[in-house]
Amino acid sequence: MEKTRTPVTVAEAVQRVTGRVCRTGTETVPLHASYGRILAGPLTATHDVPHFTRSPYDGYAIASRDSAGASGSNRVSFTVVDHIGAGEVSQAVIGPGEAVRLMTGAALPAGADAVVMFEQAVSAGQTFTIRKAFAPQENLSLQGEDMQAGETVIPAGSFIHPGVVALLATFGYGEVKAGKRPVVGILSTGTELLAVTEPLAPGKIRNSNGPMIAAQLARMGIPYRIYDTAADRLEVCLQTVRQALAETDCLITTGGVSVGDFDYLPDIYKRLGADVLFNKVAMRPGSVTTVAVAGDQFLFGLSGNPSACFTGFELFVRPALLKMMGADHLYLPRTTAVLAEDFAKANPFTRFIRAVYDGTTVRPAGFNKSNAVSSIARGNSLIVLPGGTRGFAAGDQVDVLLLGVEEGMNDWVL
Amino acid sequence: MEKTRTPVTVAEAVQRVTGRVCRTGTETVPLHASYGRILAGPLTATHDVPHFTRSPYDGYAIASRDSAGASGSNRVSFTVVDHIGAGEVSQAVIGPGEAVRLMTGAALPAGADAVVMFEQAVSAGQTFTIRKAFAPQENLSLQGEDMQAGETVIPAGSFIHPGVVALLATFGYGEVKAGKRPVVGILSTGTELLAVTEPLAPGKIRNSNGPMIAAQLARMGIPYRIYDTAADRLEVCLQTVRQALAETDCLITTGGVSVGDFDYLPDIYKRLGADVLFNKVAMRPGSVTTVAVAGDQFLFGLSGNPSACFTGFELFVRPALLKMMGADHLYLPRTTAVLAEDFAKANPFTRFIRAVYDGTTVRPAGFNKSNAVSSIARGNSLIVLPGGTRGFAAGDQVDVLLLGVEEGMNDWVL
Repeated sequence: MEKTRTPVTVAEAVQRVTGRVCRTGTETVPLHASYGRILAGPLTATHDVPHFTRSPYDGYAIASRDSAGASGSNRVSFTVVDHIGAGEVSQAVIGPGEAVRLMTGAALPAGADAVVMFEQAVSAGQTFTIRKAFAPQENLSLQGEDMQAGETVIPAGSFIHPGVVALLATFGYGEVKAGKRPVVGILSTGTELLAVTEPLAPGKIRNSNGPMIAAQLARMGIPYRIYDTAADRLEVCLQTVRQALAETDCLITTGGVSVGDFDYLPDIYKRLGADVLFNKVAMRPGSVTTVAVAGDQFLFGLSGNPSACFTGFELFVRPALLKMMGADHLYLPRTTAVLAEDFAKANPFTRFIRAVYDGTTVRPAGFNKSNAVSSIARGNSLIVLPGGTRGFAAGDQVDVLLLGVEEGMNDWVL
Repeated sequence: MEKTRTPVTVAEAVQRVTGRVCRTGTETVPLHASYGRILAGPLTATHDVPHFTRSPYDGYAIASRDSAGASGSNRVSFTVVDHIGAGEVSQAVIGPGEAVRLMTGAALPAGADAVVMFEQAVSAGQTFTIRKAFAPQENLSLQGEDMQAGETVIPAGSFIHPGVVALLATFGYGEVKAGKRPVVGILSTGTELLAVTEPLAPGKIRNSNGPMIAAQLARMGIPYRIYDTAADRLEVCLQTVRQALAETDCLITTGGVSVGDFDYLPDIYKRLGADVLFNKVAMRPGSVTTVAVAGDQFLFGLSGNPSACFTGFELFVRPALLKMMGADHLYLPRTTAVLAEDFAKANPFTRFIRAVYDGTTVRPAGFNKSNAVSSIARGNSLIVLPGGTRGFAAGDQVDVLLLGVEEGMNDWVL
């Protein structure tokens, strides 16, 4: 059996992982396929927005000086000389007492510098009157008021969500340079594992970690390749790991990282000459989580216990993959909430408890053991209880990490 | 021009929409493609979990009665008669003073009812001693302690996230019945619209709403079909709407829903004989947002203003599509946060302000006009300021809707 391992803190483990990541590279993707990608370069405004001064309302474009002195007892009258909708440009140049009827989004005609909203006018055929004076630039959307040509609007490393897509479209980017997605291998190890469609057998369980990790990757839009479940035999397992490293950018294994008699991953790291960044983390569940680097390829050795496996992915694999793609927001979004139940027993290690967060309070999602699978399915968050000598009580304010959120935070602060 | 419209509250509008939704149906999808779908029926445990009593630790299985009287001064000795890993079943039946060495996850052998962890034993070859008595069931994962056969583990209507995938795999579901995804048509209207790759022209802007909505749908995993941008001409527009309704399950239009001279959507609803659920909502931006139903097909008439369009989608289209798929959590997740800036001006309508939420405070994402596009790209949330006669100040606690979260809430409470 191995010597006693030295645990590192979660923060230290996270930092060791992200500190070693190399970028996967960039590629050009069409705009319609860009949702969920990471922006490789800054998004620059190719023109002012709006790129012409326009009306934000349905109304009449006038020269403000023509409205001077207007009041309830001294209504000023205008004559409508043209009528345009959005997308149209009036050929008229507004003369004294003249106006152009125009719709929301239409370009301001020459000679005009203000817009009278319909509800500010009394209309009668081709004329209308107003009862107040208008200031220059009143009721206008000025050229460049939203963004200016050349401005960096969104920094490199941003997650491309629908709002970013809208901006890319606005500036005419039919395609966009994005971080290349790594291809990830998934290898579940354990003599006890059956395929999902196999019938149960004594002492065996179905492989749930493999499909779960595939879904965690799918949630991030990351392609993967699944390798056949490996029994706990060193040579077979090593051969599969070698094959996976040749075919993918990095490899996630589940199981085999503890100090049990059939835990061969530590031997495999040795045989590969991999640099083990850590093999024990001061956390529950998943203290045996191991991350190693062979050449420039990551080997994420997650625990075979389902909830430890799940948590290990979200804490260590996710930020690494995001950083490979050039993202600048690597970490799960975090908030605080009121704990709904006691956690009387203290633990020296930081605990991550699968939980249901409702915007105010947070409640453990159920049966809380590292080998439990039900609570993973019921939770939308992780309660973080710092390690130490005290327990926690219902009503305490606790840290919560949110799961299933498309963009996270740019620092790890726990 | 149309008569004055009567605004409904946001809550009333949401309720009118979701109250009219029909289910799209169900279909069977393979487990590996099930992430992001909605569970059509309850997920039932097909067996106990664990389905056999097993060891949660590496250690020795013993009969607890053999440990009676053990203490530091009276160490009790055991002989190891077998050695198994996870997935293996010992043929041994433990006799008096006998033990089976076993690894985490291995089935408890016959005759044993407790596990001695390695760190609780002093080992020497094929024997070991202990210094404390063990209780029956000590250090065991009992059959059925996590879930029991026949139990409903996850209700119908749940979002299938990676944890649900793990459960489906555990219970041998190689495929799963899920809500069918509607096919959504997207039609951007407006004479001012250029395609993304067209050069700018006077008075024109590029169509950003179409690509944005496509990304909002992609974020939900929903397929769509984009129709050619329609100029503001009634007959052409009507023909495209008819075609779209024949080819899709529902249609999202942008623009043309206001009371401007070239806003033809109201006429189109009339020509289709559609039931207009509302055509004015007491909200900013997007008060002209209109939802109509023709037969059993929804026509979502979103505003042409980018941020109104974006918000209208998230508030009304998203819950409708989720309900079509049978989801039970229809609404954006909500929390509260501390407002980082003043909003001194009161507004009679409820305001939705694109914002950056950091887990504690919430800050407007930038230039705040309904025709602004930059703030959509910079925000991850919407601040909700209720309508009324007062403004809001930095430091106020405000409601926040979170964007880009995979599963929402099951009630609309604003």
